[in-house]
Parts: sequence; C-alpha cells; structure tokens
Amino acid sequence: MNSNLRGDFTLPGEAGHEALTLRLAETWGADVIRDSDGTKLSPEITQAGYRIYSTICIIREHNAFAELHPETQQQSFLCSDPVTAEEETVRIHPLDGYYTEQFQLNDGPDAMPYWEVWDRTAGERVSREKWQWDGEKVTVTGCEKWHRYTVSFLTWRIWEEINMYNHTTNHWTSEHLRQLDPRHPLAWDYLTGWLENWCRENPQTNVVRLTSLFYNFVWIFGEDPRRRTRFTDWGSYDFTVSPAALKAFAEEYGYELTAEDFIRQGKLQATHRPPTPAKRDYMAMIQRFVAEKARALVEIIHRYGKQAYVFYDDSWVGMEPYGEYFSSVGFDGLIKCVFSGFECRLCAGAKVPVHELRFHPDLFPVGLGGLPTFMEGGHPEKDAMDYWLHVRRALLRQPVERIGLGGYLHLTEGYPAFVDTVTEMAGQFRRIKQLHQEGAPAALPLRVCVAHTWGKLRSWTLSGHFHETSDHVLIHINEALSGLPVDVRFISFSDILEGELKNCDVLINAGQAGDAWSGGDAWKNPALTAEVTRFVHEGGSFLGVGEPSARDGGDTFLALAPVLGLDLDDGSYACHGAWTFEPVQPPFAICREALRKDGRARLTAGDVQVWAAEDGIPQMTMRACGKGRAAWLSGFSYSPAAAAMLMRLLLALSGQTAEAVPMADDPMVEAAWYPASGTLVALNNADTDTETEIRWPGGKEKFRLKPLETLFFPLGREEK
Amino acid sequence: MNSNLRGDFTLPGEAGHEALTLRLAETWGADVIRDSDGTKLSPEITQAGYRIYSTICIIREHNAFAELHPETQQQSFLCSDPVTAEEETVRIHPLDGYYTEQFQLNDGPDAMPYWEVWDRTAGERVSREKWQWDGEKVTVTGCEKWHRYTVSFLTWRIWEEINMYNHTTNHWTSEHLRQLDPRHPLAWDYLTGWLENWCRENPQTNVVRLTSLFYNFVWIFGEDPRRRTRFTDWGSYDFTVSPAALKAFAEEYGYELTAEDFIRQGKLQATHRPPTPAKRDYMAMIQRFVAEKARALVEIIHRYGKQAYVFYDDSWVGMEPYGEYFSSVGFDGLIKCVFSGFECRLCAGAKVPVHELRFHPDLFPVGLGGLPTFMEGGHPEKDAMDYWLHVRRALLRQPVERIGLGGYLHLTEGYPAFVDTVTEMAGQFRRIKQLHQEGAPAALPLRVCVAHTWGKLRSWTLSGHFHETSDHVLIHINEALSGLPVDVRFISFSDILEGELKNCDVLINAGQAGDAWSGGDAWKNPALTAEVTRFVHEGGSFLGVGEPSARDGGDTFLALAPVLGLDLDDGSYACHGAWTFEPVQPPFAICREALRKDGRARLTAGDVQVWAAEDGIPQMTMRACGKGRAAWLSGFSYSPAAAAMLMRLLLALSGQTAEAVPMADDPMVEAAWYPASGTLVALNNADTDTETEIRWPGGKEKFRLKPLETLFFPLGREEK
Repeated sequence: MNSNLRGDFTLPGEAGHEALTLRLAETWGADVIRDSDGTKLSPEITQAGYRIYSTICIIREHNAFAELHPETQQQSFLCSDPVTAEEETVRIHPLDGYYTEQFQLNDGPDAMPYWEVWDRTAGERVSREKWQWDGEKVTVTGCEKWHRYTVSFLTWRIWEEINMYNHTTNHWTSEHLRQLDPRHPLAWDYLTGWLENWCRENPQTNVVRLTSLFYNFVWIFGEDPRRRTRFTDWGSYDFTVSPAALKAFAEEYGYELTAEDFIRQGKLQATHRPPTPAKRDYMAMIQRFVAEKARALVEIIHRYGKQAYVFYDDSWVGMEPYGEYFSSVGFDGLIKCVFSGFECRLCAGAKVPVHELRFHPDLFPVGLGGLPTFMEGGHPEKDAMDYWLHVRRALLRQPVERIGLGGYLHLTEGYPAFVDTVTEMAGQFRRIKQLHQEGAPAALPLRVCVAHTWGKLRSWTLSGHFHETSDHVLIHINEALSGLPVDVRFISFSDILEGELKNCDVLINAGQAGDAWSGGDAWKNPALTAEVTRFVHEGGSFLGVGEPSARDGGDTFLALAPVLGLDLDDGSYACHGAWTFEPVQPPFAICREALRKDGRARLTAGDVQVWAAEDGIPQMTMRACGKGRAAWLSGFSYSPAAAAMLMRLLLALSGQTAEAVPMADDPMVEAAWYPASGTLVALNNADTDTETEIRWPGGKEKFRLKPLETLFFPLGREEK
Repeated sequence: MNSNLRGDFTLPGEAGHEALTLRLAETWGADVIRDSDGTKLSPEITQAGYRIYSTICIIREHNAFAELHPETQQQSFLCSDPVTAEEETVRIHPLDGYYTEQFQLNDGPDAMPYWEVWDRTAGERVSREKWQWDGEKVTVTGCEKWHRYTVSFLTWRIWEEINMYNHTTNHWTSEHLRQLDPRHPLAWDYLTGWLENWCRENPQTNVVRLTSLFYNFVWIFGEDPRRRTRFTDWGSYDFTVSPAALKAFAEEYGYELTAEDFIRQGKLQATHRPPTPAKRDYMAMIQRFVAEKARALVEIIHRYGKQAYVFYDDSWVGMEPYGEYFSSVGFDGLIKCVFSGFECRLCAGAKVPVHELRFHPDLFPVGLGGLPTFMEGGHPEKDAMDYWLHVRRALLRQPVERIGLGGYLHLTEGYPAFVDTVTEMAGQFRRIKQLHQEGAPAALPLRVCVAHTWGKLRSWTLSGHFHETSDHVLIHINEALSGLPVDVRFISFSDILEGELKNCDVLINAGQAGDAWSGGDAWKNPALTAEVTRFVHEGGSFLGVGEPSARDGGDTFLALAPVLGLDLDDGSYACHGAWTFEPVQPPFAICREALRKDGRARLTAGDVQVWAAEDGIPQMTMRACGKGRAAWLSGFSYSPAAAAMLMRLLLALSGQTAEAVPMADDPMVEAAWYPASGTLVALNNADTDTETEIRWPGGKEKFRLKPLETLFFPLGREEK
C-alpha cells in the first residue's frame, strides 16, 4: 500500500494568503481549491493547476433585486407570545419578542387571509369577526376572561439566516443579506439568469458548490438576548411557506392548509415530533418543487461544462439525499459537514457519484457551539482529532471519495499541530479509501433495521449535528452503529406494516414517548404491535431503548411491553407490584455509563433476565420471547465502550457469532478486515497504549496500539 | 402545669401476662385496656378497674357460617394475565398467577354474565359468542393473531386479607379466616344477631372497637413469591363488588357497570388515579350502604350501653371520616394508626367525639414494612421516637383526646428503653392535650388549600401510610403542612369551579402528570385554568410541586405554565429555546435535599426568579403574576428542614409575615405558642444540641435544646 497517496482533498483557498494556500495545498496533498462563504479566490490560486470549486448560495446576495422586489423574499409563519385576557378585549402586537432584524410582518392582501387568532386556553380558533388588525396590533373582542390569546401571522424573512448566524457569532459587520423565494416567478427568472451569467463569467470554475439550494433549516431568533434562539430545527420546513406555496398546495391536494398546520399551538413542526398527515403532504410537495428547481439549476451548470456538487447543510430543505427525488436532480457530488460517524455514513450511502466530507473544525475563530477554535483558548488539533475518532470508524465501513475543509486558511497560522493533524488524517483517509477500492471489508450477515416515523428519509440523521440532537437517544445509537460491521437500514412504521421485517434480524426502536423516533401515535395501530410481536415470536429480535413503542391509552405504556416483559411506570402502575429479580451477568461487559438511570422500569413477566439494575430498578434486560429475543436499555450514550457493548448485544440478540469479522478483546479497540487486500485495520479508541488480542477469520494476534492509533496491518490476501 | 398527668391511654392487655399488663398500665398511666386481633383478655385484667375496649372485626371469624353459606362471602373482579394469540384460538386459565389461597373462581349463574374477554392489543371487548368457559379455561376463537387476550372474571375471596397478612408476615398458623358480605341478607341477619349476642355475653366491655366495618382495602396476592403482591391500595373499592352490588347500582343509577369499570385494562382503580364518573357513582353508593349498615351496628352496641369506636384502617372502605355519611353513623370515637403527622391531623379533624391515635410500632415482632421490631435486629424505642417526631408537631396544631398501642404486650419484655420512650411520649402527649384544653395555639391567618381530584374526601391522606405512598410528592407536602401554624383544607377541582378560592390565600397542587393529586384530565377544562389564573392575577398565590396541572393536548404541558412562567418539557419543546437566567437568592435558606432533580423545567417567561437550579435547569422558581405570586418546586421530600422551607415559602407567597406565631432562627427547631396558658413549646428536630433564638409575639429568647427535645417554656399568660 502506498502511504504517500495524494489528492481527494479540497482546500479552502484565501486571497491575500496565496503562498499559504499553495503551501498547504502541497502539505495536505490537495487537488481542489475552493472559495468559502465571504471569500474570493485570486488568480494566483485559480491558475495554480488545481481544480476549482466555487461556492454559490443561489438565493442569497441579491439585495438590490430584493429591495426592488420585496415581494420575492422568503416568508414564515410565526405565532405571537400568548396574552392573557384580563378584560374582554385583548390587544396583541404580533412581533413582540421576535427579532425584528430577521422578521417583518406580512399584512399584505395575500397574507392576511392566513392570519389567525386562537384562544389557547380553550384550544379554539377565534372567529374572524371578533378581531381586527390596525397595522400595529390585533384587537380581539369578546374574549373569555383569563384565557390566553395568540395571533398566528405571516412574516417576511429579511435576513438570510446563515448570514445572520455569521454576523452574530463571528462578528461580521457587512450588509445583511436577504434571500429570494424561487417560487416567485420573478425571482426564479432572475436567479436562473443570474446563474447563467455567473457560469459564463467564471470559466475557471470546475465545480459549482451549491450551498445549498433554496430554503434554510429553521432558525427563529428572539428580540431579548436572554432568549435569542426561539426555535432552531435542522429538519423542519417552516421557511418554505408563502401564500403562493399554500395556494399551490390547495390546488394539488384539494384541501387548504391553515396557519395552525404550521404553528401547532406554538410548538411548530420540529422533526423530532411525528408529523400530521397534512405535514407529510406538504413536505412531499416541497420536495418535488425543490427537486424540479434544482434540476433546472444543475442543467444550467452542466451546460457550461461544470459539475454541480451540493452541500447538504444550510439551505438544504427539501433535498434530503434519501428522499424520493434526490437522485432525479442530477448532482455530481454531495458534500457533508461531519463531526460524527453517522454523518459520514449519511453521506457515503447517498446515491450520487462523488461523496465528500467537510471536516471540522471549520477554519473559523469559534466553533458551532460558540467555543473558541482558532483563537485564544482553542485547541483545533484536539478538536480535529476528536471528530476524526468518530469519522474514521465509519469510514472503515463504507467508502467516501473525498475530504476537505472550509473557512479562512490564514487562521491555521500559529497552529502547526493542527496542520500536522490534518496531514495525518488525510493520509489515513487515503489509505482507507484505497482499501475499499481493492474490496469491501468483511461484515456480519446481521441486518439491523432502525424503525422510526421518518424511515429512510431520515437515514442516519435526526435533525442536525450530534451536539444539536444529543438529548435524543437514537443519535447515540446511530453513532454507535455507524462503525459496526453490520448492515444498517432505516425503516418507517409503514414499511413494517408492508412486510419489511422479512429483511431484518434485529429491529431497533429508540426514543422518547411521543417523539418521532419512538413513534408516538403510530403505536396506537394494533397491527404494528402485532407485526413486531409476530416477528419476535417467529425468531426475530427487538431492541428497545429509552421509551420504545410508547403511546397513550394502552393497557401498557410501551406497546411492546408484553414482548420485552418490561414496562415503564407513567403512574398507572401505582399500587401494582412488579416481578422481583436477581440481576444476572450477561455474556459481555456492561458499559454502565452508557445507560440512563431510569426509576420507572418494572418487570411485567417472570422470565426476564436483568443484565443491569440501579437501586433495584432494571436498566438493561433480555428476554427470550417465542423463538426470538427482546432487549431493553434504559438509555444509550455513545462512547467507544458503549459501541462495543451494542455490538455484543446485537450478537446476543441475533444469536450470531462474530466469526466473520475481526474482534478485539479490549472493548476500546475496533477492527476491520479487508479480505481482498489482506489488511487488518485496528483503531485504538483509548488515549492510552492498549494491548489486546485481535482475532480475525483465520488468525489472531496480540497487538500493542499507541494512543488513538490507526494501525494498518498486512495479513496476506485472502485466497480467491 | 401538671407533668404527672395520667389517663387517656389505651393499653393492649394480654392473657397469660396479667402482671405485666397491670404493671405497664400503671407505668404508662393507662385508663383503658383492650384486646387485640388474636388475643383475649382474662378476668384478672378485665376486672382490674380499667375501662375495657373489645376488638371486633364484624365480617370475620364466622368460618362455620361461611362454609355453610359460601354464597355470602365477599367477592372481587380480577383480570387474567394477557395471553398472546399465536393461533386463532387462545386458551386462558383465568386464575393463573393469582394466589389460589385467596381467590376462588365464581362461575355461578349470577357471576358469569359479568365475565368478559378483551383483546388488549386492539382495546376491544370480544363478543360473547367468540368465547366459552368449560369450568377450567376460557377458549377464545377467531382471535387476531399476535394480539393479547384477557379474561375479566368474578372471584370469591376465601381468605380475609388482614388474617392472610398476619399469616404470611407474622407466621400465624391458625385456620384461615373467611369474610362475609353484609350485602347478602342471610349474612346481614346472621351478623346482626351475632353482634347482639356478643354484646349480651360481654358485659365487661365498655367500648366496642370495630376493626373496622365490612370491606378491606385492596390486597391482591400472586401465586409466585416473586410477585406476591400484585396490587395493594388502601383507598380503592375493588373488594366491595358482587353481582348483588352491581344490580343495586343499576337500579339506583339507571345504568349498568361492567367488569371493565373495575378492571380498566388491568390497571384497576388505584386511588392515585383520577376516577371515572362511574367510579364516583359507585363509591357514593358503597358509602351510603356502609354508613347505613354501620349505623345499624352502632345502634345495637348503644342499646347494650356500650360505646362504638371505629378503627380507620383495615376494613374501613366506604367510611372515610371526611366523607358525606361518616357523621351519620354515630360513632363515639375514631381510632387511627399513626406513623406520621398527616395521620394525626386526619384523625384530629374528623367530626366525632373522641379521637384516639394508635402509635407505632405495633407490639409485633416485625413492622408493616417487614423489618424487625421486637426481635433481633429491632430497635423499637428508636422506631417509636422516629414516629413521635412526626406526630408531636401535628399534635401541637390540633388536639386529640387519646393515645394507645396495639399488639402483644409480652414482646416489650427485654426492651426497657421502649417502655421508657412510651412513658415519655405519653407524658408529652398529656401536656400538649392540656395546653389545647386551656386554649388554642397561635396560628397565622394564612389559608392554604390543597387541590386535588378527591378534595375533602381524601383530606390529609393519599392512600395509606406514609411509606406506602412516599413516591407521591403530595404526601410529603401534607406531612410538612401537618405541623405548620396555618389553616389547611383539602378541596377538589369542582370546589374551585364553585368559587372555593374565595377562602384561600395559597393554593397548592402537587402531583405527577395524570395522577389524582395533580388532577389529570380535570385540567382539560379551560374554566379551571381560567379560575386559577384569575385567582392569582387578583392577588392569590399558587404553589405547584412536581407536575402540577399537567394534562395532555394543551399548548403547554402544565396548564398553569403561563402563571408559573415555567413549563416541563415532555418532548414538545425539542428545538425551542428557553429563557436563560441567573439564579437569585430567596429570602430564606433553600433545603436542596427536598427538591427532586428534574431535567425538564424551562422558563417560558423572562420575569421568573429562579431560586434553585441544578445543571442550569430550574428546580425552584417564584414569579409575580398580576397581583399574586406563583412558585414551583421540582419536588418535595419531607424533612424538618423541608417543612421549615415550606413555611417560609408560604409566607413569601402570601406576602404575610410570621409575627403572630413563634419562629426559631434554626430551621431544625419548630415552636408553638399557646397564648391562653402562656406556654411556648419548642421542638428540636435535630438529634444534636441546638442553640437558637426563638421569637414570639412579644418577646424573643435564646434557647439551648437537647437532641430531639420537646421543651415546654412558660412565657406568662397573654393579657385578655
């Protein structure tokens, strides 16, 4: 194997720092130089023999046009803070508490019919004749005293949210950028013309890097700095709405959406919550619209002999890589920001010719969480390595073609350890890529299906980066799965009802009662419970984590309690005795830190094995049920040791052995075996020297791994 | 004050231990000697000049009659464990898993029409033609595969539950006692005749101590020792049912009850859960029946010149002292088993001439919780003092007339420290009683209303002793309130709707979402939320503890979130930002141990004071709302320090000062002031010497209190 591989690396260039750019391109073996949001490449860079990516955020940076045609800007529904009726008349200033640099009321004739007033105490819409808007406030008359009233209303969004983020986080002071809605014909004509022109004027560009398409994920700011973020969801569609979109919907679906379909009592449409049927319809319409418009852009780009890569972050809404319409767009590449293994798998599994990972940290002074990176107090090389530890194990499982960085290159000056770390990561990446090219790694014939509301559409991801969703247990499961030698698919409850469990060995349901990941009301359908019960009784296995299959109104809190032999007490078990138990030792070590201390679990059957308990309450259980098995974990918090436990639990559930894949004795060491190239790759996840025996099909050996080491060990090629 | 007061003390006598009995009667200053369950007094005792209580459990100890007339025995509905349909036919043995020494199937012609089969997966009753009973099993045909089926059925209860408890816990080996249902005319005639005869034959008895009336609280045993207690609820009515009762109900109310009204998906009717309207009707009918029959017994007892005291434990169901019909029975006294302050207040507040407390520990080898008392490993004097610390602070607030003990007196031999402790407790009790007789203690004009589903009916208690309900936050609040110098009443949500808040300064709602104490669906009525909102806006105060006013389907999880400025995240707030805050110091010390660490609280208003937080999550908050105030505690765990915090919180909420009552600087010291007798009583709740200043209306002084001391301190009588 050639350890001096080069290429497959996208470097952010920086005008004014040409020498640095070219030096780091050499150091890191870059083959591509790109510009970044807010930067521009100089001819010294673009003419240095590298392929060039140019970043375009198609809907942004058209302030002159937006000011001329403010009606082409993007919109959103908002709901006022509730106002308590101390009298029979209530006055509400709708935008009170919202960030008026971001939002402007839309009380135009198209918008007003969508405004609504609600009595939130009674949960009733207030009839139109009881309220009026005078350009400043809504006056509601005939109120029920001491009830709370809200106004739902449309707004123009007058500051593109990524630009707003960079101003508020990275202290940008440039003009606030506006954003156009491609649904408006005037905007669309303008944008396509602009893109044609841009392509003509930028012959040096090889790849147009779309950042991204039209509609940003949702980010609603508050006026008060003590509540600056009122709502932020990487997966919701609130920023796609407009009277035009609502009209198009009514025409296509034959029923009208109202403000409340978006506002939902002020709770909005977080991806973590199960959607209404109307929301599903609406999302499908937006997805088709986005795909159609994106296809038109890609065609323009192709016409100019360039490739079109899309960045799956920022204004990505409607173009989910696992959605129905993604492959119809014709993108040449997909670029994904990655902190984590699950993001790597999300990118790697998309149907598109080129997959590229943008590594963190960004070359910005502070990170996404607001902590210092390339400034005093920051340790970018440590951050880079932390992220790499998550990514490398996923890379071992599924290939991606390229990696890269983003941001301001000059920030790396003074951080030589960071430069070295990236050099090392790039080298490891290239060796792993080469192994995949020679032949796939060995994997177990163990088919894991993760079932949740969204199924395939939200494969691997929940709603954004790990740190944005780390309260949700499923992201921890996904992160662990991303590096395991098993087949992983994401299926919906509808898929289960349509027979998808025929392709499953272990079914996982992991979430909180009522959320999209556990499933909420989906479990009110007895057919779903019956089908999973059948699956387990006939030999399949079920792993529930947290509050799996929870739903209101049943005789048990978890619909699958009878399968698990365990339920969670939501109060209904007051006065009921539970089965007592003696914990037993499972066939592997428990990573107790991974579990969540839950005081509510209780055995509902006498034949459950309790593998972990806290204060006499089960935290991890296993039960034989018919010909299959069912296990429950109180929680799951990702760590390498937790991933090792999950691997061993999947084996125990499926009844399989790990003979087809390499396994280390030490749970902090993971390994992959590439039979075609006869290479064993061992990852030391511990930051200490680790001595462990690794067994692989056909051999075993004791290894001593350096802290965090990635070891490439030649075993000799497999006999064909 | 006379510290050598005697009397007001009921001693359990024991045949065979006459000398001991008389000696302890002298030591403890007893004026009454009683027998106990399973004991009989000898003439040496009954003729020693003491008043005599005789214990009667009217429905028990009639085995010969019960065997002759088994149809007069008591009954109960049970629900089989669910059976999963692996085929289209399912066979269920209804009693599988139940303790067959307690239950016997009732498949008689009166009972069978009430049997039901349910598909619990679908939540549907199975039509009658699809199942049959062959005397051994129910066979259900045409099942949905992989659904779970249950049988609801009637049983005879063939072992009286207190007797069953004494056999299983105290290793009794005597004949299993049966119990009769007074609703059966044959049984009723027999029982009244038997009582007449008993009264005739027991002229020495002054007081018939009824233990208690007819229907025991519910105690359902399982066959497997690993699930011996399947269900036990001190407050539910499951043991009152029979086909005759169901028929009487249908006649009176004009609608039929079914098995499912009792079984409720197998969850039964725990008092901790809000009742259905049908359950309320049924309880009212049982209460009237119990009162009517009890009145007849009391009339017999009175006719023989005896008094009738009733023990409010064991077979008490339907005779709640705060129920509608209690005072109509004509009892001469109420005896209550007490571990705790709230039980003392429950007894003290009942409308009956004599209130008597039966102190713990019982003179049994083991306590109610199964731990040793009068046997190796037991420390009965320590137990007695622990309970006394709870009881004495409640006794300071409201008088009771008598105290006593129960059980086997010979067990006290070898425990002289216990004998001394009881002597000390009896002395303190008599001094406190005398203070009350001279005039009531000073109290604040602070009216606290505790609102829950049951209101007055379940004043002070939830469902049994403290240790049986200590998972429920309200019992901790009640225990704290039982010793505070405030006016406490228990009101229902209906009372609130009927205007009861006009008599309230601080309204408390403390419970878990969906339970009877928080209120569950009662909060779906917007009128309730509006009325409490009005109350607070107009100057009242609200204290929410745990999950107050929680209900499904609202725009907030807590209906009163807008008043509190705080809500709990049930998952609905995913992606929503909360108000940030800096904790502020309240005007008193926080007892952090009393709070429960809850990770779900989030501020929904910017004007909330956070008085305690953990990991950045509020645990105790205060908010001015209109002219009133609203506070929230994440939890409340009773301790003297917690009670001190609650007292100070009530002052902060009401805006009152504590000038009218004595207050100690040290929160471990409580004090009461009896103006009429000019006596200050100070309680040291600490088991260390405590020096503290106590201020009372008109003075202050530094005291040094011995560990756990009860100090009676003369201040001089108040000027009239």
